[in-house]
Amino acid sequence: MFESAEIGHSIDKDSYKAALPALREALLDVQYELKEKGDFPVLVLIHGIDGAGRGETLNLLNEWLDPRLIDTVAFDQPNDEARARPWMWRYWRELPPKGRLGIFFGSYYSDAMFDYLDGNSSKDRFDRQISEVQRFEHMLVNDGTLIIKFWFHLTREQQKKRLKTLEKDPATAWRVSPGDWQHYEQYAEIRKSAEHMIRLSNTAYAPWVMIDGQDANYRSLTVGQVLLAALRQRLQLDHPYLARSESAPIVPPLDNKLLLETLALDQALSKDEYLVKLEELQGRLNRLTRHPRFAHHSLVLVFEGNDAAGKGGSIRRITQALDARRYRVVPVAAPTEEERAQPWLWRFWRHAPGKGRSTIFDRSWYGRVLVERVEGFAAEADWMRAYYEINDFEHQLAENGAIVLKFWLAISQDEQLKRFQAREETGFKRFKITDEDWRNRERWDDYKRAVCDMIDRTSTSQAPWTLVEANNKYFARLKVLRTVCDALEARLENGKGKGGGRNGEHKNGNDKPEHD
Amino acid sequence: MFESAEIGHSIDKDSYKAALPALREALLDVQYELKEKGDFPVLVLIHGIDGAGRGETLNLLNEWLDPRLIDTVAFDQPNDEARARPWMWRYWRELPPKGRLGIFFGSYYSDAMFDYLDGNSSKDRFDRQISEVQRFEHMLVNDGTLIIKFWFHLTREQQKKRLKTLEKDPATAWRVSPGDWQHYEQYAEIRKSAEHMIRLSNTAYAPWVMIDGQDANYRSLTVGQVLLAALRQRLQLDHPYLARSESAPIVPPLDNKLLLETLALDQALSKDEYLVKLEELQGRLNRLTRHPRFAHHSLVLVFEGNDAAGKGGSIRRITQALDARRYRVVPVAAPTEEERAQPWLWRFWRHAPGKGRSTIFDRSWYGRVLVERVEGFAAEADWMRAYYEINDFEHQLAENGAIVLKFWLAISQDEQLKRFQAREETGFKRFKITDEDWRNRERWDDYKRAVCDMIDRTSTSQAPWTLVEANNKYFARLKVLRTVCDALEARLENGKGKGGGRNGEHKNGNDKPEHD
Repeated sequence: MFESAEIGHSIDKDSYKAALPALREALLDVQYELKEKGDFPVLVLIHGIDGAGRGETLNLLNEWLDPRLIDTVAFDQPNDEARARPWMWRYWRELPPKGRLGIFFGSYYSDAMFDYLDGNSSKDRFDRQISEVQRFEHMLVNDGTLIIKFWFHLTREQQKKRLKTLEKDPATAWRVSPGDWQHYEQYAEIRKSAEHMIRLSNTAYAPWVMIDGQDANYRSLTVGQVLLAALRQRLQLDHPYLARSESAPIVPPLDNKLLLETLALDQALSKDEYLVKLEELQGRLNRLTRHPRFAHHSLVLVFEGNDAAGKGGSIRRITQALDARRYRVVPVAAPTEEERAQPWLWRFWRHAPGKGRSTIFDRSWYGRVLVERVEGFAAEADWMRAYYEINDFEHQLAENGAIVLKFWLAISQDEQLKRFQAREETGFKRFKITDEDWRNRERWDDYKRAVCDMIDRTSTSQAPWTLVEANNKYFARLKVLRTVCDALEARLENGKGKGGGRNGEHKNGNDKPEHD
Repeated sequence: MFESAEIGHSIDKDSYKAALPALREALLDVQYELKEKGDFPVLVLIHGIDGAGRGETLNLLNEWLDPRLIDTVAFDQPNDEARARPWMWRYWRELPPKGRLGIFFGSYYSDAMFDYLDGNSSKDRFDRQISEVQRFEHMLVNDGTLIIKFWFHLTREQQKKRLKTLEKDPATAWRVSPGDWQHYEQYAEIRKSAEHMIRLSNTAYAPWVMIDGQDANYRSLTVGQVLLAALRQRLQLDHPYLARSESAPIVPPLDNKLLLETLALDQALSKDEYLVKLEELQGRLNRLTRHPRFAHHSLVLVFEGNDAAGKGGSIRRITQALDARRYRVVPVAAPTEEERAQPWLWRFWRHAPGKGRSTIFDRSWYGRVLVERVEGFAAEADWMRAYYEINDFEHQLAENGAIVLKFWLAISQDEQLKRFQAREETGFKRFKITDEDWRNRERWDDYKRAVCDMIDRTSTSQAPWTLVEANNKYFARLKVLRTVCDALEARLENGKGKGGGRNGEHKNGNDKPEHD
């Protein structure tokens, strides 16, 4: 979820200054149009890591926009009056009326998350609250409200640095409270709980927007552009039912820096070294799938990647280590007529593995948000909704004990060209290269954006994506194998995950684990 | 929820035979049109009380319709293959493809409910499963599926009679299994759990349809008409987004027998008797609201009824017994401009009482599904959705400890006329009668239908409706007072409700109660 917000986006001072006047003018325009039309309210939620610029953003919005048309509410602990009533009561009271922009600084999400983190509520209550919030937001959207939810993000290191910087300067030291440092200590838990909460509430009708909070210029411009794009889209819609089916537009990173581009695709690894490690890892994988506790789990591996990135080769290196009776490779192509007559996820549900078994998908349900999005086979409202549906599907697999791992094999355009040409020259590999491959190649940039959006929206602790630098096939195969072994080991040998990091499980409070 | 299915609907043999040919022909027509169009599937779920005619209906549908275009699946206990996978897996597998009608006899609802009733899952898991099911059905509807969920109902007495009748006849004795009698023993629990489940899953996009299961003719014709109306509506819609916002049409009772008409509106009670009882009940109410445990609760009373039915008088008899510092009467009229700028429930949320307090609504949020429906102030999609939103609102009040009681004061048309005329003749009461009252009176039948639909969809164990026969004011006032006292007493003195009946609480499994 936080991947793209952790790669260090930034915008230089000059670009910022150059972009600002037009943005501010446009924002004022839509704000007045909102007031003029007066037929729906806008609700902006500001959340995120302490020190990631939430307060600054709040002030900025009040400076950029006409503050007379903004209702800002900062929610702290509920007072006695609120405590005596249903917990959502104080949020209902502060909703912005039609034609106005309401900004909630902290909201029901903070209540639910910190009650859980502070041990005042159970995992079940946390989940129930998220469900209540979903129904609440659905009701608001059905009523016409445009909801935009910002999560301002920092890595743990960035947060530390930021708090220290603020403390050093006497002019900003007051901004840092002991509570901030306490949250810094809780960083890993907060990140995990937030990810869980965001996944469950990242609906198409009220999506979260992740903001890299490190660089003030980038952060501020992005917030402004997101707000502008969402408002413009909403103001254009006339039919209320259409508004209910629309989701806020995805604004691509303003500095054009994409997660995929941060990968060092060329990794060195000699064949000799590869062969030694390969044997070692395959042995390890084989032992792990024969682990007695694996009988209570299953393994779901998803392979996606650029054409000719080596998915098949990586898959074979895994299946070589597995008992042929206990795994299945499912190659995914365009849906058949039978499959098209069903809900789109149907053909993948069929292949959910039983306990003690592995299913390896060579391409997968992610086609919905890759090829179907890029080629226009699915309507925007449908592929936007698919992120949530996918997370729900993988959640159900994981709840049933499945260890779900997803790999994106990335190669450079040059490397792809080399491989295409080599395939065309090698007779027995010629079937592997088609006109479609060449066509996809022309839409390289569209796919790149779709891949980054996909990872941002569907990489969860329950079902993480691993980006694999695959210009060197040997390196790629080993990275995949190692990731699978590590995840299995964490789950089978240490119980509920390694307790942190991307593969860690969501904190389970005082409840007993649901599996094992 | 089950009110209208318990008043003994029936259709005589001749009417049944007369209606059948046209219905069957029309059903076949829409079935072929569905196949022809081939762009969406229909999913029919059959649930209900044992003996209420589920099996007969299933056979009938296969007889009436072209069975080659029907996929019937009866779900029993999951087999090993299904048990090794996420619990929804076996339902995904059996989904009907586009252009076809799938009938699930038993479904995920039975799994969730009986796992809970048999002690195999907790209340929290039950609720979580209902949430999962909601997301699943939402996904199906977004994908185009038309979902119709039938609940075949019987009262406990009817169920007993039905099972005995079946047992007596050697030709049908095989239909009664020991499991049926066991469910009969569990009747109260099944009814409560079903009500809870239906309330949480009675969404506008996939609503439940209650069928009185006692009379075979009535039951069969109703199922046929509901199916026909839903399919016809769906086949007319072209824009997929519109289909997502529509809900199945409400089919009024085929025998024209309405819940409201079962009331004996004229009840005898002398003034002397009234005055004695009034004092007694008011004393009891006063003591109850001073009960130490009331500090953890609140009281929410809703008064709706025909114009001139005596709402104000009943309310005064209650407030006379309350401490003026601890209650508030909220008269509800048309929304103000400020209120119209907010989501429609906003103006009611504001008045949620704090702990230890009472709020009495003289008219209420039910205006949404009464006057706004009848007068066309709200679009059908909006007032249809309101039933769910209302249940959700009252659920949140109840979860917070509120005792929510709703009263419909019913008078006859003749009695209303008398009261209108009397008001016009009495100078100081003249303000009480307006042109609007006379206009509403002209739409008497529309209101009657709206009231019955409202009660069927929003009377829950957490927030039950009480129908009050109000031609005799004295009787009405005492019935209201007594109902309030009984409910308070059950909650305050016996802990979590009286454990059964309409005011009983939903079974709480092994979880600790959330309040008290």
